[in-house]
Amino acid sequence: MMFEIPEWEFEERIRRIQAELAKRGLDALITFGNEAEPQYVRYLADYWPAFETAGVLVPVEGEPILVIGPESYTYAKSRSKIAKIRRVLAYRESAEPEYPGEKLTTFEELFDEASNGRGIRRLGLVGYSILPVPIYEGIRKAMKDGEVIRADEILIKMRMIKSENELALHRVAYRLAKIGLSAALEKVRPGMTEIKVTSIAREAMMQAGAEAEGFPMWCVSGPNTNQAISRPTYRKIQKNELVQIQVGARVGGYTSSIGRPFVLGKAPDDVKKLMEVGLEAELAVLRAMRTGIPAKEVDRAFRETVRGMGFGDWLLYGPCHGTGLMECEHPWIESNSDWRLEENMVFNVDIFLCGQTLGLRFEDGVRVTKDGVEELSNFRREVIEL
Amino acid sequence: MMFEIPEWEFEERIRRIQAELAKRGLDALITFGNEAEPQYVRYLADYWPAFETAGVLVPVEGEPILVIGPESYTYAKSRSKIAKIRRVLAYRESAEPEYPGEKLTTFEELFDEASNGRGIRRLGLVGYSILPVPIYEGIRKAMKDGEVIRADEILIKMRMIKSENELALHRVAYRLAKIGLSAALEKVRPGMTEIKVTSIAREAMMQAGAEAEGFPMWCVSGPNTNQAISRPTYRKIQKNELVQIQVGARVGGYTSSIGRPFVLGKAPDDVKKLMEVGLEAELAVLRAMRTGIPAKEVDRAFRETVRGMGFGDWLLYGPCHGTGLMECEHPWIESNSDWRLEENMVFNVDIFLCGQTLGLRFEDGVRVTKDGVEELSNFRREVIEL
Repeated sequence: MMFEIPEWEFEERIRRIQAELAKRGLDALITFGNEAEPQYVRYLADYWPAFETAGVLVPVEGEPILVIGPESYTYAKSRSKIAKIRRVLAYRESAEPEYPGEKLTTFEELFDEASNGRGIRRLGLVGYSILPVPIYEGIRKAMKDGEVIRADEILIKMRMIKSENELALHRVAYRLAKIGLSAALEKVRPGMTEIKVTSIAREAMMQAGAEAEGFPMWCVSGPNTNQAISRPTYRKIQKNELVQIQVGARVGGYTSSIGRPFVLGKAPDDVKKLMEVGLEAELAVLRAMRTGIPAKEVDRAFRETVRGMGFGDWLLYGPCHGTGLMECEHPWIESNSDWRLEENMVFNVDIFLCGQTLGLRFEDGVRVTKDGVEELSNFRREVIEL
Repeated sequence: MMFEIPEWEFEERIRRIQAELAKRGLDALITFGNEAEPQYVRYLADYWPAFETAGVLVPVEGEPILVIGPESYTYAKSRSKIAKIRRVLAYRESAEPEYPGEKLTTFEELFDEASNGRGIRRLGLVGYSILPVPIYEGIRKAMKDGEVIRADEILIKMRMIKSENELALHRVAYRLAKIGLSAALEKVRPGMTEIKVTSIAREAMMQAGAEAEGFPMWCVSGPNTNQAISRPTYRKIQKNELVQIQVGARVGGYTSSIGRPFVLGKAPDDVKKLMEVGLEAELAVLRAMRTGIPAKEVDRAFRETVRGMGFGDWLLYGPCHGTGLMECEHPWIESNSDWRLEENMVFNVDIFLCGQTLGLRFEDGVRVTKDGVEELSNFRREVIEL
């Protein structure tokens, strides 16, 4: 079983970025990552911050630098695929400890070192949507009258098409998610809290080899099922009501996500009908996906199926989103998606339907192939009555 | 067993903030929170974001507003103690989906609604250290030539002294952490991975009633033990080597954290010696703490004990940090801490010692009382050889 991306692939990623920087006339690029959003740091250094945050500074030529907070040095050293590591105060914990007496690096020193004293005049920024203000302001100040440019798309583009190693990790992650889901379905009983059911799935995955859960997992029941994003509660699951579970593992950084609605006992008619709509919609989406097809056609297949079955009001968003180092990442398939599917894109087909008091999600991973998809999960894609 | 802060206490928190805003001549205050750092949102709304982020807008008069992303409405509605909820695009997921056709609120509309059309001229900002740039820029733009002022200290100050309800939740969280730690110590065997040991502790807490783990927990062994912050790996634990475990639960948002070093079999002499230094240091700190004592005297008791035993080079930071809705929050007790301990402050006594190849942490929760501390955990505070 493979558990991490090999070192040479990290080096190749840095080289590809450097080629892109040269092409765009950028002197360097700096990424950002935190505990919940490690993607732009883990992709380049395999480092996953906790408590403190981190960044990776890639100069157009020469060695990249992993930038961390004051307390993470020994941890980062044991994990980082990037050898050069510097501690900068702005990456400290949110409670802003002061570390009196500690010798830390300034952004000015960092930029000077990365550029070998030549200075950075044009800097690309990656992770803008999650970058905290104090780090942004530290960067801006150190750049003086240099340019700071949003450059998310450089990494987004690279990360959208998965390598063989990335696919191998995704496959393990989906296999583990199936183990988690299967354990939960086997052990769930009426009267069990949503939190406990979720945790049974998590523990089964962890003991089977996951490094972590792939996202904050949940199981929700009854009136909670119409939540697109959720967390489990102390509510006790009842017989004959809709229950929704979302299970996903993380392996070498790569995630999986399987979503299933189920019922303990017989599903009421309205619940069964909704499940059937979700299943039909998922199948329609799976049939539509293949290399070269316009993304908006996949969205259309989804909406037409759901509307055709009379559930047009139950739509919130499109039928697929990219997945990788985050459960949810670029690209999204929406009604306005003006691009075509490419081979080795990995998506979660994410069929979410919600009404006033009821909702469900069928979710499975797929890899786009030349003439269709490789299904990374399809465990019990059916009306599940336990 | 109590699992949440009662509604009236949330209302009281809003009233206290409004009084403080009036005193400072602020028209409103806006907080920020995300999946990993929910504190400034959960404190006011009991809402814990996932995937998307959130904020709470408190006008000096009138109703507060919970601000969320496009997908979190039904989830937020089921959890939020604040009734008025608005969706703003900037709080969307990091992958920046576009939600074509969805009707969302702008910051301008938000400020107008919160102030009842009077407008916001002076706005306090809470959670500055974690606030993403796009949200900050959205706020700045909507404020036009109004003032935006850092106001973290308003909430920091309120949160430092715990109420009876907060203390009750902390006590449950520490009791659960003890259950988790105890399960891990009972089941750990040579050859088990760090990840699996960590997960055993987590699962025991979850089945005993935790809502989540209190922070990303870890167990590290051998050469990994000198990491101040860490995550567990696939390394297999060996006999007669140092192992460090950090366990903590979350209940109603409030966290706990217990840290213990242990050895499977007999501890080598250098490990045993280090454990004894850690234990002595923790006892010295516990003895020094009480209402009214200058924080830097607690730090001094710590450093003098460690230095006196010949381990002065093994220090990285001070001996205590505040705890509450985050495992680690204000205030930190450091050599430069110019303030005095107050009754009902809750700290983690966090004795971390690290060398080149070895490190450990004894960590326990305490509440400051008139003449000492109430120990929230003290399970097996000893040299643990299993």
